[in-house]
Amino acid sequence: MINQKMFDLGAEPNKIRELFAYGLKRKAEIGAENVFDYSIGNPSVPAPECVHQAFVEQLQQDPVVAHEYTPSPGDPAVRKAIADYITSEFGISATAGNVYVTSGASSAIAITLSAICEPGDEVIAIAPYFPEYRTWTHTADCTLVEIPASVPSFQPDIAAIEAAINERTSAIIINSPNNPVGAVYTRENLQALAKMLAAKEQELGRRIFIVADEPYREITYGADIPYVPNLYADTIVCYSFSKSLSLPGERIGYIYVSDRMGDAQAISTAVAGAGRALGYICAPVMLQRVIAKCLGTPSDVATYASNRELLTQGLSELGYEYVQPEGAFYLWVRALEPDAIAFSERAKDYELLLVPSDSFGVKGWVRLSYCIARSTIERSMPAFRALMESYNG
Amino acid sequence: MINQKMFDLGAEPNKIRELFAYGLKRKAEIGAENVFDYSIGNPSVPAPECVHQAFVEQLQQDPVVAHEYTPSPGDPAVRKAIADYITSEFGISATAGNVYVTSGASSAIAITLSAICEPGDEVIAIAPYFPEYRTWTHTADCTLVEIPASVPSFQPDIAAIEAAINERTSAIIINSPNNPVGAVYTRENLQALAKMLAAKEQELGRRIFIVADEPYREITYGADIPYVPNLYADTIVCYSFSKSLSLPGERIGYIYVSDRMGDAQAISTAVAGAGRALGYICAPVMLQRVIAKCLGTPSDVATYASNRELLTQGLSELGYEYVQPEGAFYLWVRALEPDAIAFSERAKDYELLLVPSDSFGVKGWVRLSYCIARSTIERSMPAFRALMESYNG
Repeated sequence: MINQKMFDLGAEPNKIRELFAYGLKRKAEIGAENVFDYSIGNPSVPAPECVHQAFVEQLQQDPVVAHEYTPSPGDPAVRKAIADYITSEFGISATAGNVYVTSGASSAIAITLSAICEPGDEVIAIAPYFPEYRTWTHTADCTLVEIPASVPSFQPDIAAIEAAINERTSAIIINSPNNPVGAVYTRENLQALAKMLAAKEQELGRRIFIVADEPYREITYGADIPYVPNLYADTIVCYSFSKSLSLPGERIGYIYVSDRMGDAQAISTAVAGAGRALGYICAPVMLQRVIAKCLGTPSDVATYASNRELLTQGLSELGYEYVQPEGAFYLWVRALEPDAIAFSERAKDYELLLVPSDSFGVKGWVRLSYCIARSTIERSMPAFRALMESYNG
Repeated sequence: MINQKMFDLGAEPNKIRELFAYGLKRKAEIGAENVFDYSIGNPSVPAPECVHQAFVEQLQQDPVVAHEYTPSPGDPAVRKAIADYITSEFGISATAGNVYVTSGASSAIAITLSAICEPGDEVIAIAPYFPEYRTWTHTADCTLVEIPASVPSFQPDIAAIEAAINERTSAIIINSPNNPVGAVYTRENLQALAKMLAAKEQELGRRIFIVADEPYREITYGADIPYVPNLYADTIVCYSFSKSLSLPGERIGYIYVSDRMGDAQAISTAVAGAGRALGYICAPVMLQRVIAKCLGTPSDVATYASNRELLTQGLSELGYEYVQPEGAFYLWVRALEPDAIAFSERAKDYELLLVPSDSFGVKGWVRLSYCIARSTIERSMPAFRALMESYNG
């Protein structure tokens, strides 16, 4: 006996990981310098010095204390440090009791959806979206409703979202700066979304939460990134330090249940319950204490900004169409044929590894992760030229 | 809107944590040396030097590599190291593909149950048992069936388990060395369990897995600890380094799907799917690589052995009845009145913090964690005497 749903989920092809694995194999065959791997969102800038220093300090402590259990929602001092950071950074009176430290944004979102949804509810995602939103919505026994973003701005389409909301809608997940597009949702758009949701809550007599998935908050190129709880009270922020502190494999982040909700404490209690249900005891203790010492440490955005410049300029000159990224480290490029999977396959002939947009719930585009070595981008330009010529020739 | 089940789970009183919190408050009031805190299973011996050394080595690496994502089932080199260790230590041909690295035994068990059970199935636990077995069984939409252990040996009662098995039974969770009792299941008893389960599988035409929860495997006082996959093919081992390497808050362990199952690969696929569903991306990467370097490092059992000796001798002289622990670092003591909760409350009058057995699914006992300072045990003896006298006086 085996759970068929879980088997199917484990056996499901994962295009990003397949491409990544293909890349490893190909690099072994023809040399790493000849493969242009734009597949994976693993930060290419090292963790800031603060992180290394904090690790060293943790290791100098009494090891019994350094590696001890913390309460499930996190070390009280760490929760307080995060709440204080939110208070000072975003001007909201955040309390430690509404901060729940997690093993990254993944567990934050999975826990949050299980905490706030009842079986049969609907969760809205704006396509293209991070594929695991669907998985975690199903874990909560709910349905994911995909609403395409406006093209080519890739802003949320407020009217389309409004039309999709009904008496089963419990949440909308937003992700700005956005993976895979690199779009940043404008303040005007978020305000319009908040206004519409508030009216719908009133009309339906029902809570509709915004789940703000914010791992890329600090990876931006000058754009204004509003703090969603300041625009909409019923917001739960899912944050990760994976990108801002370049710690993707360490799994550390948090859930912040906005203190602007009157019943924030009850929701935090449900969050704690969902954490238990999904098998979490506490977030890794050393990581909790490391990030507490590095809150607000600036990310090395300059490297990504320089990569962005190099890549967009190069592709622009070759005639590719793309969305100008305002944040994150992804470039969303129009495939040169309607079938993005076929396009991605053809790109492999030129040693270019590009993720087809089908993985993210839309057709006709590819995602390029430019958190890679600058030299790879430089050397890939002739391949992009040859790929373009193969369609125009 | 909020998920009531998750709210209830988050709001559920946790006697162990309540006692622990009470202890912190009481220590602040009357001085730590005057409170005898037997509530929590946080290892009191430091992590072995190997662990510290491995952390330092990880921190000397390129930080981009040191903190990178690994594949969800774990760093391939770490999975292979664990498989090789199982092979050499237990004489089973373990393959890396059937090792899935987890965030401790908690996530290992939650993931395993979701992978192998279908909604409506039954999971058997031997009472007393670790309370979260119930939570994670419910996460898999299954029912936990409690079968009391034989008293006073606290071995599994094979006949009672046999009588409970039906066409909905999908797994039995065993935990040896045992929390909360400290019992070690004998080879004869495990063989009898295996034989009965094999016959039941035949009779019902249905897989019945043993889920072997083994965080205390290395914390033993000379007892023989059989490797369950060698006795019963349909075994899934859930292991944690929390106790053996004194890393409880770091959350690192693994699932091993026995290679002796013909369809181990399919079960490992379901395990990977369940990991995704519950929000796991990968186990903390630095911890993965640290434990890979410390596999087989002996635990400092001597300290626990000496505590065990001191505590059992002291309580014995005072006339307390207890189960002689063969492993783990818990002592299971008969309450001096039928109501263990009332007994635990009265013990607080003598500054003794003892966890009532009701938390573990049985009545009339208390659990003492003796992974504490030796001096605490010494100083607590007059309190145990006074507690005993309060009942006899």
